[in-house]
Amino acid sequence: MKLHELDHSSASGGRKLLVVLAKEEEAIKALTDLAASQKLGTARITAVGGFSKATLGYFDRAQRSYLPIAVPEQAEVLSLVGDIAEGADGAPAVHVHAILGRPDGTTRGGHLLEGHVWPTLEVVIDESPKHLRKRLDPETGLALFAGK
Amino acid sequence: MKLHELDHSSASGGRKLLVVLAKEEEAIKALTDLAASQKLGTARITAVGGFSKATLGYFDRAQRSYLPIAVPEQAEVLSLVGDIAEGADGAPAVHVHAILGRPDGTTRGGHLLEGHVWPTLEVVIDESPKHLRKRLDPETGLALFAGK
Amino acid sequence: MKLHELDHSSASGGRKLLVVLAKEEEAIKALTDLAASQKLGTARITAVGGFSKATLGYFDRAQRSYLPIAVPEQAEVLSLVGDIAEGADGAPAVHVHAILGRPDGTTRGGHLLEGHVWPTLEVVIDESPKHLRKRLDPETGLALFAGK
Repeated sequence: MKLHELDHSSASGGRKLLVVLAKEEEAIKALTDLAASQKLGTARITAVGGFSKATLGYFDRAQRSYLPIAVPEQAEVLSLVGDIAEGADGAPAVHVHAILGRPDGTTRGGHLLEGHVWPTLEVVIDESPKHLRKRLDPETGLALFAGK
Repeated sequence: MKLHELDHSSASGGRKLLVVLAKEEEAIKALTDLAASQKLGTARITAVGGFSKATLGYFDRAQRSYLPIAVPEQAEVLSLVGDIAEGADGAPAVHVHAILGRPDGTTRGGHLLEGHVWPTLEVVIDESPKHLRKRLDPETGLALFAGK
Repeated sequence: MKLHELDHSSASGGRKLLVVLAKEEEAIKALTDLAASQKLGTARITAVGGFSKATLGYFDRAQRSYLPIAVPEQAEVLSLVGDIAEGADGAPAVHVHAILGRPDGTTRGGHLLEGHVWPTLEVVIDESPKHLRKRLDPETGLALFAGK
């Protein structure tokens, strides 16, 4: 992983970062580690690149858990969008959804559980100075931002 | 809906907002109401979350209208990207496209006509101080930004 | 193409731009020309709109080249995400991935090789003052940011 500071708001302290993941890095672990080491505030993520393999998830309402969707071959990371905040336990929570492209142009998408980078993942992070914490939602068992 | 101001450009006045929609809110109405109540300037939107049901649209050139695409079950909001500006009538115009994920990882996407949030929609809005107005394009009947 | 400056960081000089492409413009050429004429620094792009036809690509690891995926009919540009930097030769390199929506809501996605705009493409560009250059990756033959 290589980190470039693209911009830095002199007033608020929020940074804009370009984070480039290298071949074989796992994206969720890399971004979670980055959030901890950089003490990132609440941030928005967008990215493009490629994965050699990935596991996506679909949240099953009845089971209150993510059903895994395996994408075991090289795929374009067509879109990776989401945010970083503090989870209900205060540790960094990376919440990103990914859409992957296959050789015939069809797509697979879901909550990103695991994505193995190849050959690159170009991630832009808009950090804000705010540290917002999610909280456990009893109905789903998920850590969510308060919506009311 | 809960609004957090993530950042605020002291020079230009543009804000970065995190808007969290709660269960059962309809996204287009909520964002349109927000644009009006906050008098938002031209803004970019990205979001992730989930919908319990949604209606997407495909613009049919011959009919000059959106063909509806129903997604009547729980779906991941894999991507929601677009912008807010003033429509041809001066009222806020929310123009967002959404890509939804199904249990098997296949996707459905379109112009977002209606999306019922469940369990959350995490929306990041980059506001600018500019108020740009779209205008009616006679060929399509749509309100578009001038492209020339 | 019409360019609106939405915001301008007085501290860093980075701009936020709304670029509206007109009917029949080709997106990659238009954005590459813009990067050159505006001397854009490293920038993030997001966009929505429509294409009358497009060619997407899937990077084939064995052939070390993009397999073309033709989308020969009108499609919603559901997502267009990526970045602009300097290629290995110092010329502007536009790297964007697109996801397109078809009349039945199914999607096609890939590395965007060519996209013919109709009726509009609304592009938001976050420019930073940094000029980062990619370099040739011998394993893939692609110009990539250094990841280590």
